[in-house]
This record gives sequence, structure tokens and C-alpha cells, in this order.
Amino acid sequence: MKRYLKTISSAEALRLIMERVQLEVDEEYLPVYDSLYRVTAKPVFANVSNPPFLCSAMDGFAVLHEQTLGADLSNPVMLARNTDAFAVNTGDILPHGTDAVIMVEDTEVSGDVITIRKPVYLWQNTRMVGEDVIEKDMLLPVNHIITAFDMGMIISAGIARVTVRKRPKVLIIPTGKELIDIFKETHADLTAGLIDFNSYTLKALAVEAGCDPVISGIIATRDELLKSVKSGSAEYDVILINAGSSAGTEDFTGSVIGQAGEIVFHGVSMMPGKPLLFGTVGKTPVFGIPGYPVSAVLTFMRFVRPVCEKLLGVKFHTREVPCAAAYKIPSRIGIEEIIRVNLISNRGKYHAIPLPRGASAFSSMARADGLICIPEHKEGLAEGEEVSCELLRDEAEIKRCIHIIGSHDLSLDVARDIIKGNHPDTDLVSTHTGSLSGILAVRSGVAGLATTHILDEDGVTYNIPMVKKYLSGIPLKLIHIARRQQGIFVRKGNPLSIRGIADLARGGVRFVNRQFGSGTRILFDHLLNAEGIEKRSIAGYDREESSHTAVGILVRESIADAGIGIYSVAQAFSLDFIPLAEEDYDLIVTLDVMDNPRYPMLMDTIMSGEFSRRLRNMGGYNTSQTGTVKYSITGQEKQL
Amino acid sequence: MKRYLKTISSAEALRLIMERVQLEVDEEYLPVYDSLYRVTAKPVFANVSNPPFLCSAMDGFAVLHEQTLGADLSNPVMLARNTDAFAVNTGDILPHGTDAVIMVEDTEVSGDVITIRKPVYLWQNTRMVGEDVIEKDMLLPVNHIITAFDMGMIISAGIARVTVRKRPKVLIIPTGKELIDIFKETHADLTAGLIDFNSYTLKALAVEAGCDPVISGIIATRDELLKSVKSGSAEYDVILINAGSSAGTEDFTGSVIGQAGEIVFHGVSMMPGKPLLFGTVGKTPVFGIPGYPVSAVLTFMRFVRPVCEKLLGVKFHTREVPCAAAYKIPSRIGIEEIIRVNLISNRGKYHAIPLPRGASAFSSMARADGLICIPEHKEGLAEGEEVSCELLRDEAEIKRCIHIIGSHDLSLDVARDIIKGNHPDTDLVSTHTGSLSGILAVRSGVAGLATTHILDEDGVTYNIPMVKKYLSGIPLKLIHIARRQQGIFVRKGNPLSIRGIADLARGGVRFVNRQFGSGTRILFDHLLNAEGIEKRSIAGYDREESSHTAVGILVRESIADAGIGIYSVAQAFSLDFIPLAEEDYDLIVTLDVMDNPRYPMLMDTIMSGEFSRRLRNMGGYNTSQTGTVKYSITGQEKQL
Repeated sequence: MKRYLKTISSAEALRLIMERVQLEVDEEYLPVYDSLYRVTAKPVFANVSNPPFLCSAMDGFAVLHEQTLGADLSNPVMLARNTDAFAVNTGDILPHGTDAVIMVEDTEVSGDVITIRKPVYLWQNTRMVGEDVIEKDMLLPVNHIITAFDMGMIISAGIARVTVRKRPKVLIIPTGKELIDIFKETHADLTAGLIDFNSYTLKALAVEAGCDPVISGIIATRDELLKSVKSGSAEYDVILINAGSSAGTEDFTGSVIGQAGEIVFHGVSMMPGKPLLFGTVGKTPVFGIPGYPVSAVLTFMRFVRPVCEKLLGVKFHTREVPCAAAYKIPSRIGIEEIIRVNLISNRGKYHAIPLPRGASAFSSMARADGLICIPEHKEGLAEGEEVSCELLRDEAEIKRCIHIIGSHDLSLDVARDIIKGNHPDTDLVSTHTGSLSGILAVRSGVAGLATTHILDEDGVTYNIPMVKKYLSGIPLKLIHIARRQQGIFVRKGNPLSIRGIADLARGGVRFVNRQFGSGTRILFDHLLNAEGIEKRSIAGYDREESSHTAVGILVRESIADAGIGIYSVAQAFSLDFIPLAEEDYDLIVTLDVMDNPRYPMLMDTIMSGEFSRRLRNMGGYNTSQTGTVKYSITGQEKQL
Repeated sequence: MKRYLKTISSAEALRLIMERVQLEVDEEYLPVYDSLYRVTAKPVFANVSNPPFLCSAMDGFAVLHEQTLGADLSNPVMLARNTDAFAVNTGDILPHGTDAVIMVEDTEVSGDVITIRKPVYLWQNTRMVGEDVIEKDMLLPVNHIITAFDMGMIISAGIARVTVRKRPKVLIIPTGKELIDIFKETHADLTAGLIDFNSYTLKALAVEAGCDPVISGIIATRDELLKSVKSGSAEYDVILINAGSSAGTEDFTGSVIGQAGEIVFHGVSMMPGKPLLFGTVGKTPVFGIPGYPVSAVLTFMRFVRPVCEKLLGVKFHTREVPCAAAYKIPSRIGIEEIIRVNLISNRGKYHAIPLPRGASAFSSMARADGLICIPEHKEGLAEGEEVSCELLRDEAEIKRCIHIIGSHDLSLDVARDIIKGNHPDTDLVSTHTGSLSGILAVRSGVAGLATTHILDEDGVTYNIPMVKKYLSGIPLKLIHIARRQQGIFVRKGNPLSIRGIADLARGGVRFVNRQFGSGTRILFDHLLNAEGIEKRSIAGYDREESSHTAVGILVRESIADAGIGIYSVAQAFSLDFIPLAEEDYDLIVTLDVMDNPRYPMLMDTIMSGEFSRRLRNMGGYNTSQTGTVKYSITGQEKQL
């Protein structure tokens, strides 16, 4: 089945697009005070000099320097006010016939007589014409983004208006009868359709790219789309149709562009973003932006933003930093893959932790620190392999994050909210890889902070045996966060009458599991073992979710009938809860981290009354030992 | 004379200010689409999950997986459309009673019968509820700056409005009867007063700091100011009075704040910025911002921006890079000095070139790459001393600059305009230190590109002897830019009948000189010597300006009667010109620079017909040899 005309490389796609972007946007002549971050369409030359006249650099008296020659302590020169000496303030124009200023401190004033006891030299205490800016100087070149300081400089040179490029007009057309615009349909049932958020994200990205974007109404039929594209092409510099570029029964974007203009390509060997479609209608570039939200923004960044740049005559700077893959990151050969990552800055090096890779996992765009690109010809990255990361946020911001890896718990959100409330420049980022992965990340030096709750084989002890086993020789502390209750989630009223683990193996119970390596999975396997229950007897054992809340929502929505998780999540989703165990949720902190100036913020937060109180209010937490050091490995052992 | 109450350190000043900023600004509840870069006043929790229902991840048919068990090539399962199998597109909700999706490619469709030849497993090709965002998840913490991706994420979670901090309201009050507002007085004589540009720069800085600034009308009297401050304090979160915080006869800012409220301090031992005044009127912090424009913006950045940050609950990230002082930078002990610098990136290291240091030299704020700070207790920086530079522009942008140091010529502006026009991401920055300083900067490794026009003692040869003398062993090329005419500038009509160098020594001629080390100064001294004229016989010999245009404007404005410079500047300022010499203006390019990917842009520009044509149009340039290599030093000689 032919889904695309022909899939081409992203480089070839960009080349074909840029080839077709010929037109420049119009210019406009704006008051300088409205020109912040606008782009000059012509060089800017000084209209007048700054200062525009010879002026006083001091508060004092303007004089003709020749009249003061020979003045000394015993032979003062006396000048008549407003005849020979004129009072001036800093910045005042020098009165005609004067050529120097004597500071008020160096004079004796008595009525209209000014006495001077030392000579003044030519141009003393004056500012020359054009000392700062000289008439006709080129102050700004063409294609320059105007800053606050530029504005001041050109106003100082007597320029009130500046010729800048008009913002390119971008029309965003959302298509799809299932879409809900929550700003217009304020009482819509939000579970009855798909919320259109792509249009608003694309609009914000277009604003950031210096454009003037407009979102049309949601379009449901091919005829409406054809009409919008035709009329839009006369009025807009760029059109984005979202989506309908794939191969579903309602994917008519391609045929509409083909009818109204010309399709240039359909399909780019890039993931996410493969279904991108590009054509022209008249002179207007028209993009069929893929519907999956990550594909939508990545194709915007890769292909639409360069068009905006070309129209504006600028190049936005992207920043790249080197990093190492925290784990092996597989990738399919033959397609370029763009992977969202968080960067952990540990021991002076960045490690990239891949975030969920699906084209629909949009929140990972908001959470990502950057993007790494695995080219078509590569099968992925080996653990520790060096790669360049294109940053999505400021490096200073990334360095000011406290990054915790490992087990998921709602207490991390509470800690984040408290830290960010007290220290606006500091964020807490947690990556939920499960307890075991967290420990391994500490072992490999990727991370210095990891949360864990792993039950030992003895069925009693938490965390300490695993720390001993995997992290011996690494100086660290194991700090207790809280004891918490684990149990079985079932729907309110427990309709399937589940009383314990054994009931999960009954026919007709759809269970949803946690991922391998998570503390909850280890607990569950331990309990199954203890009761002699076969894993394969549990329907859904292979369906893995990576957080307590993911399990909770599936049970509440009746997609699954049971799952394992913490009491606070059962509370939050109004589920019934069958307790199974109480466990220790702890934090591993390496010595490296203790030197970090942000570490005390984290510890102060964990030790705070607010933290304990908010945990207890969520239910299922025992905070009596919160903040205590349960175990530590000192530097000495490392020497052994 | 007591000019300030008491001068305190900048750290103490900031402490006193922050102590008095207690109030938080109000919140507002905005549509998410208007919230880009706004700051959350509360954490944001997901309203609904994304996706909100079990939905199809493919285009195909939704089925109940149990009905497909056992299907294989020879035993197909046939399902009835709209009874057992339901056509779905990607993103569609799964119809009631179905739990998996089979891809359309894996089916055979014949009318209303769908034939399936392999079984489907539970939840196959579906997206789980909350796969991306789970209801009740904390999506954003408090004090978070909302990005385009954040907007998409929270809209996807069903959030249409978000509680953000109101932008702090900032009132900017310009004072001074000499001020001209060029936006209001569009026909004002721009040389009859001082253009108020501080207000507009401060306004743009306040916008960048997340505020909502308003400029009041220009205020000329103490009574008006008192009234404005009193009424403003009820309505605004911060008031900036500019200026009147110094000690001139019209400096009434202090007494007004004292009368309306309380003065906290007056005077900070920081330069520029010393006259800063701070007080409160009611609960509103009121700043007496110094009048010199550099002082105004530096005090804003150091003291007002932190107040905006506190009110907003954010911390804007500043970025610092290490650099080395290109030369010795002296500084007065006992006062903290902030110095604007350009950074030259050469051989993997930044060197800081100080820009004009006066508090009135505002254009250097626009031209600077960053700021370095010399603390109170230090007497300055030694050549090569390491120091941290706070960046004013993006590091990527600095790295993409072609930086030329040395002699000033209008051809550098032409080259800049051509390069920036053809390559919007590349700028040409030139620092006018004079020919000799440029050569020394190449010798010390600070710079890789320097312009020069130095006449040899033989009175004939240009540049090559100096390059041989100072740069032997450094692989480089000397590239010819143009021959140009030097001569004496006099006012139109030559009112003092100056015919040559000898006439400058006549009584009554006010001469203005170029700085020591400039090629023009070397030429002038050579000519004086040749004609046997004493330097001291020339009035104004000691008055130094650092560019041809600075000399030109002083002659045109009748501040000086004569000066030496190039023909193109005489043309630009309609001056009469008495030719003295033709000289070679050349560019030194080191081997390091030739490896830089931006070097070809510079050479293409110099070789272009447009460059030569524009030079010839300015007059006084001979471009017949432009672009030729006049001399080179190869790597071999370095080995000797």
C-alpha cells in the first residue's frame, strides 16, 4: 500500500522547501519604541550626533578658557555672571562664546562674581559633539534583531522610526471532525473528542519564530479545507494544515494541496515526523503538518522555522552541548530518529536520559532539556556514546536542576512544588525509570540522586541490601523519605470482589502490571512467589505501565480491573485499596551531590514540616522517620 | 561638599532594597493561549488525562480481541462491520465492547465482512488512557515560566485557563526641562535639547524583565514630580525617576522621595551608577535612576531587575563565560567598576576588549558582548588576567562574529552591511584601537584579523615593514583592502585659508588630533617631522579622537578648525579637503582565522564588485588592487 509519494531524507526535504521560498515579506516603518526584537530591513544610520552639541560634563560654570589663563591662588580671575561665566548643569549646551567648564567646587561665588583660582584648559569638562554617536554612522546593519540597548542607541541618534520586516503571516488550519477547541466550546465533554492543542502549540512556536500566526476555525470537510487553502494563499506567507497528511480515510490534505497548487514531497524519513507533506499554492508554501503532537512540533522546528527565518532575514541561534547516552538507545536503521532527552549534569558531564519516544507523548517535549538525533545510517547509541544535544532550554537552567532518577512517588511532586516555591531558580526533575535503573544509574556515574524501594529476598529489608550489593565503594548516604503502603487497586466498591493476590489469577480479571526493575514489580513478583502463583495465570501480567498513577487511571477507567500501587494514588482516584505491604521509600545521595549548592535546598525540603504534612494529607505515608540517614558508605571503603 | 547621604557597596544596596520588597503582585486567570512566558502563581494539575479514553493508535478496525483468537491463514475469522468490527482512524475512541485494533493493512474487506487471518491481543494498537498525561498529575510547579510546549501540554490536559502572576506595573518618570521626546515633538530641533532615550531603554528592559511599564510625560518641576510620585505609589509596583538623583541645581528627586516617603540610601560605590537613590513611598519601591544612560541601564540591571524577579517569583538566568583581559585594564581602587567589553574568540579562548568606559557612552552597551566587573578592592586587571564576563548576547552569536581590530575605516561598515545581508547569522564587529594596537593584538594572540595603515620611516612603504618587525614567525597574509586619500579637514569654503601642514601651527587654528598608535597619527607626526614643525606649536595637538568621523564632526560643528582624516569622511560631512598622502589600508589575516568557516564570507565580501563599487562611491578610494595578497608569512619561518 502506497502511503507516501516517496519518502525523502530530512536534508533533501529542507533543500526542496528552501528552494521554493523566494518571496520576502513586506517592510513596515515602526516607531522605535515598538521595535524590540524586530528585524531591520535596512541599515540604520545616525540622524544626529549624540551629544548633538558641545555640552557640559559637570555642574559648574561655562567660560572661555583664554580668560582664565594665569589664574592661581594669589592671582584669581574674577568673572561676571552671565557675561563671562554661565551656570550650567551636566548635559547643558555650552553657551555661545564659551569653550570650557569649571566645576562648581573649584569656584568661589559671591553674588554675580565668580572667582577662579586655577586656569581652565580648552574643552575642559565638556563632552564633544558625537562623543558617543556620530551623525551618519551606521548604527545597525540590515538583518539585525533590535535589542533594548539598540533602541536606546538609535533614539539617541534622533531616529524615531525604523524600517523592519513585517512579521510573516502564518495561517494554522486545524482539521478533523473529532477535534474540540476548549477555548470556544467551554462546556464540551472533554472525553468525547480530542482536544486540539497542536494549533495552540504551533501558534506559540510561530510567535517565537517572529511570525504573526492566526488559527482558523476547525475544518471538518475537504471542501472547506480547499476553500481555506485557496483564500489563505492570497493573504498568508505560510500555511500549516494540521493534520490529515497521513493515510486515514479522512486524510485529504494531500489531495487538497494537489488540487489548489502543487505537491513537492510527501513523507520524510524522520521519526517522529514522517507524514510531513509540503507543497505550494501560488507562491505560498503549504505544509501538511502531521497530527501526532510531537511530529507536529518537530516538523515545525525542522522545516517551518527555517522558512520563517528566511522570510525575516535572520537565523535563530540554537545551542548544542556534548553529552553521553546514559543507557543504550536503540534506533531503527534507515530512518533518522529525534529523541527527547533529559540531561543530568553529574561530575561535570551531561548524560542523556531518553524520554518516552512515541509521537503522541507530547508532555515529554515540555519536560525535555534537549533533542538528540540518531541519523538514518545508525542503529542507535551505545551506553556512554558521545552525541550532540540540541538544547530546548537554557543551559544555566539545566545546571540549576536537582535531578532525581529511579522510582516514582507522588512525594517527588510535593518536593518539587516546595523547592520551586522557595527557590524560583531551582527545579526538581524526576525521571521515572524504576528503582533498579536508578541504582544502576548511580553505579555508572550517570546520576547522583536516586529514589528506591526494593524489597530484599528476605522479604523484610528494603533498599540497604541492594545498595550494598551494587554501590559498594561509592561514598553515599541512604536517606529515608517515608514509609508508604502498597496494595491492590480495584474500582470503587470492588465489583470483582478481589481480596488478595490469589484473586488476580482468577479468570476474568484484567490486571495491569508495572515495568521490570520497578520496586513495585519486585514486590509483586515476591508476593506471587510466596503464594505460589504462576505469572502466566495472570491476564495482563505483560502489560507494563511505568507509574502508580498510570496504573490507577486504567483501573478507574475500567480498562483494567486491578493493579498494584501506593495508597495515595488510590485515594486520588477514589479507588478501593487492598493493602499488601508497607515499604521504605528512600533516597540515595552520593558524595558528589552533597557538594552541590542546591543539595541543602533538597534536604531542607525533605526535613520540612510542610513536606511531611502534605505527604500525610495524601494518605498512606508514615513520615515519623523522614529525613533520617539509614545507611552510609564513606570514602574510606572506596580506598579498600 | 556632601553630595550623597552615604555611599554604600552594591551588595549592601541590593540587600537593603530586597528587604523592602515585601509585596507580591496580584494574580490573574488567563486563557492558556495568552500565557506564553508568564509565570505560574500556583501549580497546574491535569484536569483530564491525555488521551482521555482508550483510543486507536492506527487506522483500522476496532474489535474484541477474544473474537480473533485462533485466526490464522487457513482459518480466518470473519467479522461483521459495525457489529463485531468498527472502522477507526488514528485517535478515535474505541467503540464500546472493543479492546483492540487491527491495522487496515492486516484485513481483507469485502462489503460488510472483515476477514482477519491472525489473532489480535488485548489492547493491541491502542493508546491507553493517560498514556501521555494522567488526570491530577502536577504538570507545572509554581514559579514556572510557561513555554510553548508547556502550553500544549496543559491544553492537552483540558486546561483552558491558568493562574499567573500579573506583570508588575512599573512607572517611569523622565525629569528635566532640557529633555525632548522625539515621539511626541516630531518637529523638534534635535540639537536644541537632549533627546530622552533613557525612558525608552528602561521601558524595554522592564518589558524584558516581565513587567508592564508606562512612561509618564516629561516632568520639569519639583511640584509635578511630587504629585506624580504620590499618585503613582498608589497604582504602581515600582517607580523609576530618571534622573535628578545627582547634585545639580535641579536635582530634586531625593527631596521629593524624602517628602513623600522615606529615603533608604543615596549613592552606591559602583561606576557607572554611583548616584543611585532608593526609597519607598507607601509600600512602593522608588528608584532615583542616574541620568547618564549607561548608569541608568546598569542600575536597572543590578537593582531593579531583582525587584521584578522577586515580584514575579522567578530568577532570570544570566550566563557567564571566562575570558582574559586583552590589555591591562586600570580601575580606581575603592569603587566597583563595571566595564563593557567585546569578546574576541580566537584559538578557543575569549579575550575581552574594553569599550569606551564613560557613563554617557551608551552605544557601547548596544555594541558590547558582555560586562566584566572589577571589584572595589582591585586596582584593575593585568594583561591576560582571567575574569568572568556576564554575557549580554548569546554565546552562539558571539562565536559567529567576524571580529576585526585595529584601524578605523568606513569600508568596515560597508563590509558589515554586505556580510549581514548575505548571511543573517554572521556579523562583523570592528574595534577601533588604531593600527599599532591591532598589530600588537595579533602578536599577543588576542586577535586573528587586524586592519592597518602604518607608514614606514622611509616615508613610502605601508604596513609590510611593521608586519615584518612585529609579527615574524606568525603565519599570516597581508591582504590589500584599498588605497585611500588622507588629508586635512577644514570647514566648507576653508575660512582660515589652510593650504598645508605648516598652516596648522599658525596662531588661531584649533586642531584636533588622532590617538597615539593610529596610522593617521603616525602619518601626521611624519609630516610634521618632514616639515620641521614643532608639535607643541599646534593648538589642540593633545586633543585625541579615535576615528575619522569623530574628527570630521568636530570640524563641521566649528568646535575645531582642522583635523586629519580620509577623503570619504570629508565628503560625508561636506568638508573641504586638502590632500596630503595616499596610503594602503590593509588587513592582516592569521592562519588560525583562515580555518574559520566564516573567513570565506569575509573574503567573498572584499572580493565582491559591490564592495569596490560602494567604496568608490564614497570617494577617495582606489580599489584596483583590492583583495590581492601583498605579503605573507608561511608556517616554515615559524620553525626557524
